[in-house]
Amino acid sequence: MTSDTLRTDGFLGGRLRITQPVGGYRAGADAVMLAAACAARPGESVLELGCGAGVALLCLGFRVPGLRLTGLELQPAYADLARANAAANGIAAEILQGDLARMPETLRAESFDHVIANPPYFAAGTVAPDAGRGTARHEETQLPDWIDAALRRIRPGGTMTVIHRAERLGDILQAIGSRAGAITILPVSARSGREAGRVILSARKGARAPLKLLFPFVMHEKPSHTADAEDLTGAARAVLAEGCALDLRGP
Amino acid sequence: MTSDTLRTDGFLGGRLRITQPVGGYRAGADAVMLAAACAARPGESVLELGCGAGVALLCLGFRVPGLRLTGLELQPAYADLARANAAANGIAAEILQGDLARMPETLRAESFDHVIANPPYFAAGTVAPDAGRGTARHEETQLPDWIDAALRRIRPGGTMTVIHRAERLGDILQAIGSRAGAITILPVSARSGREAGRVILSARKGARAPLKLLFPFVMHEKPSHTADAEDLTGAARAVLAEGCALDLRGP
Repeated sequence: MTSDTLRTDGFLGGRLRITQPVGGYRAGADAVMLAAACAARPGESVLELGCGAGVALLCLGFRVPGLRLTGLELQPAYADLARANAAANGIAAEILQGDLARMPETLRAESFDHVIANPPYFAAGTVAPDAGRGTARHEETQLPDWIDAALRRIRPGGTMTVIHRAERLGDILQAIGSRAGAITILPVSARSGREAGRVILSARKGARAPLKLLFPFVMHEKPSHTADAEDLTGAARAVLAEGCALDLRGP
Repeated sequence: MTSDTLRTDGFLGGRLRITQPVGGYRAGADAVMLAAACAARPGESVLELGCGAGVALLCLGFRVPGLRLTGLELQPAYADLARANAAANGIAAEILQGDLARMPETLRAESFDHVIANPPYFAAGTVAPDAGRGTARHEETQLPDWIDAALRRIRPGGTMTVIHRAERLGDILQAIGSRAGAITILPVSARSGREAGRVILSARKGARAPLKLLFPFVMHEKPSHTADAEDLTGAARAVLAEGCALDLRGP
């Protein structure tokens, strides 16, 4: 990754400016949705596992003032980008370079009110055009290890929030087992009536409340894809363009 | 359960007449939905675990001709009712009295194209006004044992279909583990926008296709409860009143 491969994009309707590699792994709507779904309140601490260039962490820091933000990122170049993006947006965040499967000592001693993660979507071994992109998008570290690392870093009563492909829902639930409760699943569908493409799942450590399967969050208004890019639902626009929260606790 | 506590109700718009105890466990919409979701084709074999008075099994037999239907029921009085209901509706079905946790020898030797089940919804120990109802509604046998019994009785490539409270989704997926694939989850919501009350889950033994989380099936049209009983959605009416199939394989 060299500097001439970088580009700066606006997130949250241009309120947040994020520099990412053009050809590498690029965070997008999923990172914004993840940040919107984290129930952090001012003054609390949040750890993001695999923070990449910092999109989710900084979206969260933008929405909720006074958070203590920490990001862990395996790839030094992305960790550097996350630090630069935090500084450029005036959001305080500590970015650590390290491997969640070999949790750095400094994090091992800490526990957080919230942990968020957007683990890689594709199994290791699939072809990636770029090394950095490959590591960010592929499962060098297995999904259960992400869930395990997240649960270990949460204080009792704290929450874990993850976004992943809907087809991994069973794997995520199995990895959680009985180690957390109050599991809330928000399916995300591209359009009304379509199967979920993503799930956002939150769980509370030590809680015993039963699982909830929420009605899906629908991204696009029209029944099929059109050239018109402005076909987000009102709810999706509120989250993606206005930085609103996604309340998983429901009404 | 004495004969004067029985009542005969119409299912599938009156096409099926089912006699059930008035005060005991009474099958309803969930059993009909379960039958609608089973992908059995003419000539195939179907086992229902805990068939009660036979509503699901007979709804399925009514919709799909030429099935070989078998029901296993713990309580002799319900097994008798299921036999009488099958005869009264002219549907051939073999009803065995026995415990799925101690699978009868005759079933142990068999494997089925499809197994369906609507396991008890409430944990053992909660108060039930009637002994028969208590056994049918409460988990004397634990949910993982139901899933295990179902998976054991399916031929390779055959399907299991279950309906349960949505909050048990994690327990069902954990019980399945990696023993079946092509898991398809249909959330059932009372109304659009509401969290799922039930999930219908199908899985294929030995399959490796990824999990699918479908868009919810919505039961009622109006945003909240009204005195008007006729407020089923068109899709719900098709299944409950007309005996149509619920295709979990999607479009």
